[in-house]
Amino acid sequence: MNVAEYLVKKLKNNGVNHAFGIPGGVIIDFLYALDKEDGIYPHLSYHEQCSAFEANGYSQAEHGLACAYATRGPGFTNLVTGIADAYADSLPVVFITAHAGNSSQNKQRFEQEQEMNTVDIVKNITKYAAVVENEYEAEKIINKAFQAALSGRKGPVLLDFCSSIWKKEIDISEHINECKFKKNTINYDSVYEMLKEAHKPVVLIGDGIRQAGVEIQLSKIINKTNIPVLSSRGSQDSGRLFDNYYGYIGSHGLRYSNYIFSEADLVIALGNRMAFPLNSESYKKALENKKIIRIEYDRREIQRSILNTYTIKNDLRSFVEEFNFKINCSSNWTDLCCLVKNKLMFCDCNSTVDFLCQIFKEYKDSDFVMDVGNNEFWASKAYELSGVKARTYYSKSFGALGCSLAKSIGIFYKNKKHIVCVTGDQGFQLNIQELQFISREKIPVLIFIINNKISGMIKDREKREGYAVHTTYNTGYSSPDFKLIAAAYDIGYVKASSFNDLKDIPDNKPFIIDFCADSQLTLEPSLPRGRKMYDMVPELDKYILDDIRH
Amino acid sequence: MNVAEYLVKKLKNNGVNHAFGIPGGVIIDFLYALDKEDGIYPHLSYHEQCSAFEANGYSQAEHGLACAYATRGPGFTNLVTGIADAYADSLPVVFITAHAGNSSQNKQRFEQEQEMNTVDIVKNITKYAAVVENEYEAEKIINKAFQAALSGRKGPVLLDFCSSIWKKEIDISEHINECKFKKNTINYDSVYEMLKEAHKPVVLIGDGIRQAGVEIQLSKIINKTNIPVLSSRGSQDSGRLFDNYYGYIGSHGLRYSNYIFSEADLVIALGNRMAFPLNSESYKKALENKKIIRIEYDRREIQRSILNTYTIKNDLRSFVEEFNFKINCSSNWTDLCCLVKNKLMFCDCNSTVDFLCQIFKEYKDSDFVMDVGNNEFWASKAYELSGVKARTYYSKSFGALGCSLAKSIGIFYKNKKHIVCVTGDQGFQLNIQELQFISREKIPVLIFIINNKISGMIKDREKREGYAVHTTYNTGYSSPDFKLIAAAYDIGYVKASSFNDLKDIPDNKPFIIDFCADSQLTLEPSLPRGRKMYDMVPELDKYILDDIRH
Repeated sequence: MNVAEYLVKKLKNNGVNHAFGIPGGVIIDFLYALDKEDGIYPHLSYHEQCSAFEANGYSQAEHGLACAYATRGPGFTNLVTGIADAYADSLPVVFITAHAGNSSQNKQRFEQEQEMNTVDIVKNITKYAAVVENEYEAEKIINKAFQAALSGRKGPVLLDFCSSIWKKEIDISEHINECKFKKNTINYDSVYEMLKEAHKPVVLIGDGIRQAGVEIQLSKIINKTNIPVLSSRGSQDSGRLFDNYYGYIGSHGLRYSNYIFSEADLVIALGNRMAFPLNSESYKKALENKKIIRIEYDRREIQRSILNTYTIKNDLRSFVEEFNFKINCSSNWTDLCCLVKNKLMFCDCNSTVDFLCQIFKEYKDSDFVMDVGNNEFWASKAYELSGVKARTYYSKSFGALGCSLAKSIGIFYKNKKHIVCVTGDQGFQLNIQELQFISREKIPVLIFIINNKISGMIKDREKREGYAVHTTYNTGYSSPDFKLIAAAYDIGYVKASSFNDLKDIPDNKPFIIDFCADSQLTLEPSLPRGRKMYDMVPELDKYILDDIRH
Repeated sequence: MNVAEYLVKKLKNNGVNHAFGIPGGVIIDFLYALDKEDGIYPHLSYHEQCSAFEANGYSQAEHGLACAYATRGPGFTNLVTGIADAYADSLPVVFITAHAGNSSQNKQRFEQEQEMNTVDIVKNITKYAAVVENEYEAEKIINKAFQAALSGRKGPVLLDFCSSIWKKEIDISEHINECKFKKNTINYDSVYEMLKEAHKPVVLIGDGIRQAGVEIQLSKIINKTNIPVLSSRGSQDSGRLFDNYYGYIGSHGLRYSNYIFSEADLVIALGNRMAFPLNSESYKKALENKKIIRIEYDRREIQRSILNTYTIKNDLRSFVEEFNFKINCSSNWTDLCCLVKNKLMFCDCNSTVDFLCQIFKEYKDSDFVMDVGNNEFWASKAYELSGVKARTYYSKSFGALGCSLAKSIGIFYKNKKHIVCVTGDQGFQLNIQELQFISREKIPVLIFIINNKISGMIKDREKREGYAVHTTYNTGYSSPDFKLIAAAYDIGYVKASSFNDLKDIPDNKPFIIDFCADSQLTLEPSLPRGRKMYDMVPELDKYILDDIRH
């Protein structure tokens, strides 16, 4: 077995059946090995940035391993945004690149054409990055990389191979056994004490519950209690597993979720790293009146000090298996949560949210992939309203504009389901070339462009500043004719102003809905600096809040 | 004056009249300052990768300062390919980004949403990179960065501003005076000795002669001698200034250029760093029979040991001003160079080269911008044949596929001339979104797509391997309908098989020529590993070489 073949088998044995990339001279032997092996398939992208996003989507679908590859130089640098995205969202993706020279450690400016010190560039945005210069060390380094990607808090790795070793034969030593899960038992007495004293507890979930594989188990346990559950916006689909789910908090969170979070006197953060802007007055105030229990095992995260927070150093799975959620949740508290939700549920809707809500109900069995910008926030709200239980996918922490088309592709190859991809007219343009992949493979994705003809999120800010550059047609922003774009890529298209405009949309091939959205809509509600978390703008009628408070 | 205003004035005072980027929350105050200042204009791109390429093109036009800006996170990482391209080609580009948190030095995985240690990522692909955290240090750091970009061997710099300081007032101390050029006098006696002994000398020029600003001066001096001049491929347009120019050398160089280089007994490398694969047998052999004089002042380059090379540690401008090129070039040698060129000039032509040659002659007053791949090599050959003196632009050392559309935009804003942009059907797709910029601003660029419906350079390699993946329609590569793409972007279009198909092509707005190229054409000639530099394949008829040798 040669190095390329070994790497391919290793990927396949770890659940990678599809990999994404663009050929190049130094990487081609790896591509051939991928192509020759049954059960794992390479796919051609049209920009390496999208190869990375495709792999990220593939990984995010089951928080399992994924792979993207690129040639040296610009091939490699084109991966960087996707690598950072995978790192931020803890996605175990193996990025493969290669080089011809022996120059990865050199100090000249590109001694070998196109080549550079790849490891230096990505070392702070990967869990592990290494150059593989000879076949003798290949197995060891590959194993180390896979282990790093999949263990602890998951994340991407980069392996940069010397192209001359791809075809070198290697002796394979015994496989490193997969890490068996080992439950870590600790004493939770002080936590039980805190629970006993709490009157208004909530559980705050995040992406970590899916990453730890405890999503179902946890929801079954929690559903036996009455404790209200909140989530980060990115985990709203996990929220749906919980009977007492009350939405997502945040600066653009739901009013009732923010209200419930503010009022709570105990927060149990599970798989949620509480990535609030901790220096902001709003969050400081919200944390002042409560105790917080967080379960965390990322050493660096533990170092982050959060007000009133008691940290349990353990992995989430051990915690869920060991902890006894005997919570006395008073009906006063749960009734209040219910009331607040009912009162505020239909605030902050708009024509775009309504339309999206209908789309989501119609495609409730699909996967929903969101891009970045106002569109994703409207989609989150619409999802809440829709009540469907579909999976949602976001670029959660990194917010990589233009990632959604490519992510949809990757997710499709994992889940083999119809996809609804929600994007904006600016984000859609960023990686528009990837429509060729979607068209070529007839990926069944319904691309829903919220086309308000503006760069919305920035325009919202500009409104406050009273000055505008590059956000509207008059200030320099514009889009091509999406109908002709669809035709150029041989993809079905309809321009729609209302749900009635949608007829005969196929769900077995790609299709674009170009939704004429109201360009006056802004992102509401929002939490201006310094205000209390539930005191979002626009301000509600006084009687609604009075109703809640009494 | 506040920090943003100071930075804008500093850019303008250093010759930057146009900057490129995409707005984002943390960068917007800088964008406003750009927009408010007369004589410097921000321009909206559709992917930050292209903002960078646009700035690189702007810089390359006169080797002067340029600027691209991006928001934090993915905005920043999207610049990385362009930053590396600027570094490889020694382009003084100021890349501006910003952040909101104080987290640039933190060790958590994205403590502040989207933010990371930017300096760590680019420190090996910039001349200087720094975070600017407070207004007191802003002036000093900005000056240091500009100085680094523009001095010595030029190159890009990155400044990552804390967004809260953009509007902070600063006292401006006296401006740092521009570095005055100071001639460095050294003794060239040993070089004169080497010249005296030489019978077959050549001058080998590179991009450095333009960077050092000695292009015209040097050509006037050299033109008084009979010494033959060769160049790197990227500097073929500089070559045109020299009466005795004999083309560009390299693995895909011209046969006669490689022959003349091989035969020479003395090479004077001026502004050419001899970036050959030095370990390759072909180049080793070529260097064995000769002496080389190189003028170099990049410390790291000087450390590169090149066979038979005598290094003069000086800057090129001092050398050109001081050195006395009293060269006795025997007519035997110059006659041989002439003969070889005449015999081999029309080898290796093909239908694509012929067509391009006609295009170049037709647009001899335009700037020519090439993409990456087989298309650029055919364009180089066509340029040689055409005899025109237009400027040529390549991504010289980094070979960033898909850069040409954006580079054309940047070059246009500097030179305000019609542009011919040569690209391939794969490279064209990579950043196809930037057509919207071209369309929006009606940039007069003739986009010449060499559409052979294959991924050519890789296919050439695959032919040798006898295995193909992702390079042809049957193996997974395809393109959209470029005619509809042109229509979607409101750009004129014609499909052409011959020069006769071209009529009424406007030169005051963008236009696409979709040239149906022969997909069977390969990149010829080439220099397989280990062969002598002039012994390229396909092999020539024996009688041609015999003619030359006797």
